[in-house]
Amino acid sequence: MRFSKGRNFLFRIPEGEEIGGFINRFAKENNILMGTVRGIGSLRNPKIGYFDEKAGKYRVIPLEGTYELVSLSGNISVKDGQPFAHIHVALGGPDGRVHGGHLVEGEVFVAEVLVEELLGEVLERKPRENGLALWDEAEL
Amino acid sequence: MRFSKGRNFLFRIPEGEEIGGFINRFAKENNILMGTVRGIGSLRNPKIGYFDEKAGKYRVIPLEGTYELVSLSGNISVKDGQPFAHIHVALGGPDGRVHGGHLVEGEVFVAEVLVEELLGEVLERKPRENGLALWDEAEL
Amino acid sequence: MRFSKGRNFLFRIPEGEEIGGFINRFAKENNILMGTVRGIGSLRNPKIGYFDEKAGKYRVIPLEGTYELVSLSGNISVKDGQPFAHIHVALGGPDGRVHGGHLVEGEVFVAEVLVEELLGEVLERKPRENGLALWDEAEL
Repeated sequence: MRFSKGRNFLFRIPEGEEIGGFINRFAKENNILMGTVRGIGSLRNPKIGYFDEKAGKYRVIPLEGTYELVSLSGNISVKDGQPFAHIHVALGGPDGRVHGGHLVEGEVFVAEVLVEELLGEVLERKPRENGLALWDEAEL
Repeated sequence: MRFSKGRNFLFRIPEGEEIGGFINRFAKENNILMGTVRGIGSLRNPKIGYFDEKAGKYRVIPLEGTYELVSLSGNISVKDGQPFAHIHVALGGPDGRVHGGHLVEGEVFVAEVLVEELLGEVLERKPRENGLALWDEAEL
Repeated sequence: MRFSKGRNFLFRIPEGEEIGGFINRFAKENNILMGTVRGIGSLRNPKIGYFDEKAGKYRVIPLEGTYELVSLSGNISVKDGQPFAHIHVALGGPDGRVHGGHLVEGEVFVAEVLVEELLGEVLERKPRENGLALWDEAEL
């Protein structure tokens, strides 16, 4: 639960990359096991997920065209022994209306991203009964 | 206005907790007087507030069902002698459309939260004529 | 791409200021060449931009009235030899619906902002064929 700060990376993801895949590869290449990620930019044909509690799985919502990446927020931790980025996005359309949810995928038009490494005891995502892979709950 | 970095906490808030109340209790328990908070997850039956300038008070907008917590952004400072978290949220519905505003309350389904402590001269929220409790304005 | 942490500023922008202009002036006054910015609050008559890939320019979407500043996310780097803040915002209306995109302008009703300086080799925005001023792409 308690971490010290590690390395900080601010960079532009190359146009055409799949944003989530790139961030996961970036974490692996740089051996970032724990951290946070945030960013802004613009994505093409993004797909977002809404987790349906009753069904115990994500409903995928595909969006067509180019959307402003109004916010990208997430964290990096360990899943199946590998660094894994869990990311949510808010996306603005041509009329300014915003769609958002769990990032499923999106092609980068522009993506300016900050990855901040956290150092300490690794949090691990484990499969839960509700269908999600989650860390243990914190105790107050 | 100028702060150094203190402790960093990344954790999952237990399911069923009221998210704002939990963050406030977390700050008190850990004696975090100043800081920032951000996170992602999923909330049940969240209520958001829109501050009506003319009326000088919040209009509460209740949302029904489970919403993706697309972004949670806020800060911790001191109000009435206690740590107090001021938080805004963006919430994605089953169709991906996003509602958002001031966090009034929300039941945690999933909440992955980073609290970053700031160390320095404490900012205090004081009641203002417009109906809000605000820090003094910064000077450039 | 890799930075160490510099100074941290948490403050309230005075009511009535134009938010983007204030953040740019703040960066210049404090000689912040690289950094990130985030915040929450409430803006009057904000204008947001949607970048039209085909037209190679921003379409400006003016919003009337006061909007909750649900999230403000961005970065500071160098453009034309000066610190320049690139900012995206999510804005919640009286009914809670969110509009968002590139921040063009907005009058501050309330704005609580964190600016985190980054120290290292400066990223520079250069005009590109697509009509945007962007950093060089990162290599993995």
